[in-house]
Amino acid sequence: MLENIDLSKEMDKNKYKQIIEKLELKLGELQRNARELKIPLIIVFEGWDAAGKGTLINNLILSLDPRGFKVYTKTEPTEEEYYRPFLWRFWNKLPSKGLMSIFDRSWYGRVIEERVDNEIKEKDWQLAYEEIKIFEKQLIDDGNLIIKFFLHIDKKEQKKRFKKLDENKATSWRVTKEDWKHNEQYDDYLTAYEEMLKKTNPSICQWNIIESTDEKFATIKVFNIFIEMLEQKINDVKNKKITTEIITLDKFDTPILSKIDLSKMLTKEEYQEEFDKCKERIRELEYKIYKKRIPVLIMYEGCDAAGKGGNIKRITKNMDPRGYEVIPIAAPNDIEKAHHYLWRFWQQLPKAGHIAIFDRTWYGRVLVERVEKFCSENDWKRSYKEINDTEAILDNSGFVIVKFWLQIDKEEQLKRFNERQNTPYKQWKITEEDWRNREKWDIYQNAIDEMIFRTNTSYAPWTIVESNSKYYARIKALKTVIDSIEKKL
Amino acid sequence: MLENIDLSKEMDKNKYKQIIEKLELKLGELQRNARELKIPLIIVFEGWDAAGKGTLINNLILSLDPRGFKVYTKTEPTEEEYYRPFLWRFWNKLPSKGLMSIFDRSWYGRVIEERVDNEIKEKDWQLAYEEIKIFEKQLIDDGNLIIKFFLHIDKKEQKKRFKKLDENKATSWRVTKEDWKHNEQYDDYLTAYEEMLKKTNPSICQWNIIESTDEKFATIKVFNIFIEMLEQKINDVKNKKITTEIITLDKFDTPILSKIDLSKMLTKEEYQEEFDKCKERIRELEYKIYKKRIPVLIMYEGCDAAGKGGNIKRITKNMDPRGYEVIPIAAPNDIEKAHHYLWRFWQQLPKAGHIAIFDRTWYGRVLVERVEKFCSENDWKRSYKEINDTEAILDNSGFVIVKFWLQIDKEEQLKRFNERQNTPYKQWKITEEDWRNREKWDIYQNAIDEMIFRTNTSYAPWTIVESNSKYYARIKALKTVIDSIEKKL
Repeated sequence: MLENIDLSKEMDKNKYKQIIEKLELKLGELQRNARELKIPLIIVFEGWDAAGKGTLINNLILSLDPRGFKVYTKTEPTEEEYYRPFLWRFWNKLPSKGLMSIFDRSWYGRVIEERVDNEIKEKDWQLAYEEIKIFEKQLIDDGNLIIKFFLHIDKKEQKKRFKKLDENKATSWRVTKEDWKHNEQYDDYLTAYEEMLKKTNPSICQWNIIESTDEKFATIKVFNIFIEMLEQKINDVKNKKITTEIITLDKFDTPILSKIDLSKMLTKEEYQEEFDKCKERIRELEYKIYKKRIPVLIMYEGCDAAGKGGNIKRITKNMDPRGYEVIPIAAPNDIEKAHHYLWRFWQQLPKAGHIAIFDRTWYGRVLVERVEKFCSENDWKRSYKEINDTEAILDNSGFVIVKFWLQIDKEEQLKRFNERQNTPYKQWKITEEDWRNREKWDIYQNAIDEMIFRTNTSYAPWTIVESNSKYYARIKALKTVIDSIEKKL
Repeated sequence: MLENIDLSKEMDKNKYKQIIEKLELKLGELQRNARELKIPLIIVFEGWDAAGKGTLINNLILSLDPRGFKVYTKTEPTEEEYYRPFLWRFWNKLPSKGLMSIFDRSWYGRVIEERVDNEIKEKDWQLAYEEIKIFEKQLIDDGNLIIKFFLHIDKKEQKKRFKKLDENKATSWRVTKEDWKHNEQYDDYLTAYEEMLKKTNPSICQWNIIESTDEKFATIKVFNIFIEMLEQKINDVKNKKITTEIITLDKFDTPILSKIDLSKMLTKEEYQEEFDKCKERIRELEYKIYKKRIPVLIMYEGCDAAGKGGNIKRITKNMDPRGYEVIPIAAPNDIEKAHHYLWRFWQQLPKAGHIAIFDRTWYGRVLVERVEKFCSENDWKRSYKEINDTEAILDNSGFVIVKFWLQIDKEEQLKRFNERQNTPYKQWKITEEDWRNREKWDIYQNAIDEMIFRTNTSYAPWTIVESNSKYYARIKALKTVIDSIEKKL
């Protein structure tokens, strides 16, 4: 594929000058339009060392309003990044709606440099292809425009450029032993790049190959493609053209919550005895997962007043606070709203060796956002797969995933609401919204059933916790956490 | 000081049980009050290894609403942190208004561990004392409540605890060679701690020494102090008691901008010639500062339509985008508003070896925020010193600091406004607000004069750029950047 490309293309200085100014103005204008329409833009530059990514990016950004973009240069992962799934650091760099992230090398490093330099196992870069496709699809479905450029030069040209840098005193330090090694490995890289282009090209997000022997030719080509794709996207948005797949799901008709036995209970004495048995173990396990660098994600969902807070407290009571974090999920703030709904959860993923407890989760998408119509029907329908895919990515990264649904019945909820209302130091726990949600009990129960049905996977199964008896619920949750971690060790 | 403390204090189990529940309820209530009043809380735990910080923090947070706090455990600085001023990573962890950050070890590591283990020079930890005082004062003046606990045990007790951990299979890995070394170095640490307590105690933010031999005694003492200080703060806020120093400044009467010569100019040819001379040099310098890990901060302020954007473009035109970033400063967003006004600028400080260009800066505090009354008079008056202190901290960390004021006269501004209004692709650059600001020309000019007068320091001097001639202005800025970096090399 790459070998048949004509790399001799060039453009003369006068023609360049004549064209470039108009293109710069045009792109500046489109950038402002995209901003008004709140289109998030992701621009990816990949390609050979010394192919001129830096220069091309600089030519590009000089025409842009600096308030609208940010350039991210790929560097060695920091410790924070190293101990998280490899896509984590790219999720963190995604643009707000209306803004632009420009990546100077990107997530494709996983299937190129890390592969060729044998930094990861074949299994991992093969998996990375799947994860990259999921990642890009999720972003495109959310309205992002992704433009990918592959800057191409041949082995001789690369060598020539290294030599030129090397001969100049001011720049010679920039050419490292590794660069020369990469030049020798040109063919290995070629294989990896060919595979990358083949594997990710027929997808929803095409590669644009830029012949980069001549800087001026390359610059104009980048501008032209950028302008064309952005114009197309802007038109689609203006014309409200639906570019995402329409999701149809099989009819759902499987009662789940109504089948469970809520009479299960423990006495205070039984609870105390069981709790004492677990408490040493949980702290030991916390240290073990730290030593083995296993990340743990515990997700809590449940009816209002089902006792999530108290339940979480019993999980953490004997833990070392350096090893766990409770992450409460409230309504999204401005910045969170300006991103993909999964963005804020990605940010909060635990470092390998640590435990994160989410008090409410991404399942809000198919519960409150569905029922209250905060997102479109197609959005929440699509999200079952998005969430399953995301949990699969975590599973690939070695996560222990525990998902709790805390269930109480309608009478028990009423009793607890009234108790909260009548106990001065508990009143803050009950709001008008809780009462409103209660009126929609049946609608919610149906949405929960469907959620459990569609997202109960082998790698991230749901645990339904019968919670009419708080004692019973706390011990069941505690034991489930212990078992899930032990299974992974 | 520490040697006279009675470490034998303890509390029996029954009394503890009797008291703790009430204290937990009380603290939970106060936390909710503080949240409503938008008081930011900073809790610091320092003290000996094995003094029980983890356990005490866990006892504390179990009584809190998890939606309100975050625990930060001090770890080795990450690469991102290592290449920035040492306070950077703590600025990043400050709570939003109404929330709480709990620090398990903190900025005091600089004057304790890093000092005793000879990781830094004496000059640096001596400076750190000054920087810490500035940091805490700035936060307190902004309405933060800082509560600092020092957990104290003696050398024998520490040894005993290490032994106990060491003898238990599940915990023995936690006791490292370094811990034993620290126990041997108990006296060196004692000296450092004594000095820390002496140097930072008479300040605005007292240390609370917690006798930690007995966990129950220590827990109750921590709760009591926490409750007392938080109650006091809540009352102060409710009663609108002014707790910050009232700033009085000498009368200001020094015309500055009216004295400069705005007729300075360059022809297009002169400009092109000068620019060509500079363009190689700027790229070379960008690489040099990268190699020497020097951080560079270039700050742009100026009249509306003075040409900041175009000026910045000429600085960056020949740079490698991997080495610099342009950071446009707009009106603060929700999250930024919920923090100290300096917070968002700290977040954006460049890594050592990189260049950050701020398009508008923290000087907004004494310009737009002053003139439009977005902050109180006492706030902006105090901020001259806060900004000078902050720039001094950057200077201590080896920053090159360049500050530009781009000045044009009133007629030139009118000409440019009209031109923007009449050129289709420039119209987006001019808003109603620009015209409104123009009506306040004299008020702004006076505020700018005072700003330059009060913040023109030896370590961060202002460069006034005569900008009626864009060519002249661009070359002056470019040369100033080059000179400032060369001076530091």
